Amino acid sequence: MSEGKLYGVSVGPGDPELMTFRAARAIREAEVIAIPSGSKEGCVAYGIALKAVPEIGGKECLALPMPMTKDKERLEKSHREGAERILEKLKEGKSVALLTLGDVSVYSTCWYLYSRVKAAGGQGELVSGVPSFCAAASRLDRALVSGSQSLHILPASYPIEEGLMLPGVKVLMKMGSCGASVRQTLLKENRPACGVERCGMEGERLYRNAEEIREDGGYYSLLIVD
Amino acid sequence: MSEGKLYGVSVGPGDPELMTFRAARAIREAEVIAIPSGSKEGCVAYGIALKAVPEIGGKECLALPMPMTKDKERLEKSHREGAERILEKLKEGKSVALLTLGDVSVYSTCWYLYSRVKAAGGQGELVSGVPSFCAAASRLDRALVSGSQSLHILPASYPIEEGLMLPGVKVLMKMGSCGASVRQTLLKENRPACGVERCGMEGERLYRNAEEIREDGGYYSLLIVD
Repeated sequence: MSEGKLYGVSVGPGDPELMTFRAARAIREAEVIAIPSGSKEGCVAYGIALKAVPEIGGKECLALPMPMTKDKERLEKSHREGAERILEKLKEGKSVALLTLGDVSVYSTCWYLYSRVKAAGGQGELVSGVPSFCAAASRLDRALVSGSQSLHILPASYPIEEGLMLPGVKVLMKMGSCGASVRQTLLKENRPACGVERCGMEGERLYRNAEEIREDGGYYSLLIVD
Repeated sequence: MSEGKLYGVSVGPGDPELMTFRAARAIREAEVIAIPSGSKEGCVAYGIALKAVPEIGGKECLALPMPMTKDKERLEKSHREGAERILEKLKEGKSVALLTLGDVSVYSTCWYLYSRVKAAGGQGELVSGVPSFCAAASRLDRALVSGSQSLHILPASYPIEEGLMLPGVKVLMKMGSCGASVRQTLLKENRPACGVERCGMEGERLYRNAEEIREDGGYYSLLIVD
């Protein structure tokens, strides 16, 4: 029996229609659907995939709980265990679609699992998708960059003051619980900003300026600073 | 008769399967397909869309030639004329899908046409897609960024020396005829780099290091510098 293959599948930013044909095919063809979450219900990426490819509901699901923490030891353990469980399925000859929100190359938890599986000799392929910042720009009916501008994608859960000084357009991702301090910084510096909370998902909310930023906008908030 | 609507449709980076369901629907529903090119045959975005949605071939096509130049006057003229021709179609009550390679928010020519149409009072909606740098990372089987890293998207057709000094990962886009000088800079500074030429298209070529960069890699080359 030949070994299965792992697909790191980007399901896009939230709207099921923003999934690609390639992602849908990878999900359809996979025998096992792996999710970076303890349950289907708690997994945003699974919810998106289910709307785009309803037959996913009948497939074997491998729930891989991933703690939302910066504790290296706990992260390390969850990545190691997750990769081991995927490798078991591949050894059974099953192909696995590991679902990831947005694009798998941009701050995705799934990357840690995927790269471990590859390092352990497993077969794998990445399927790219629409990242949240592209979808946010479209929802805000604006371009991100044109001409000679550069675009800087910054994780807001780490210090951003220096990044905000860069010329060009800045995207602040992974806002998490940083809404209050980021909002304060932008207002103090009188920076033009806009953003989206839960882009393309239920409860979506647009920010047209820094004042509208909600302090508890949550993990799926994203800001664009000009 | 009510006016038509303009859709700024991202067809993705090259592989027709990396088009989204939303893009395919917008193309199917549109009465007119607008392309930023003098001919269907010369338009990469059209070729991608045709493979994903073959019925596009039977639709009215609005060819809008866009000169590849930095001459502001010529650009201005082509954008003005293109927007006027789109507005005519909208006034005839026709919906128009304006095709754009990659994602419409990232250095897209179509943005100039779209924003003019909107400024003139036309109805419009942007449909986001997979940008070339996400697809390139997947083809290279790597992540772009994780954890606390920032990601800097830089247009290589403008000076890049300062951008290359930034911490985090740098993506050099729009390489055009800059291959030789960028290659030289990267080799001189001994920078780890990889890249893709014509990602997902015929004639695709991967670069695993700076030495492999081809000087005449062309407009669709993209580099990732760590």
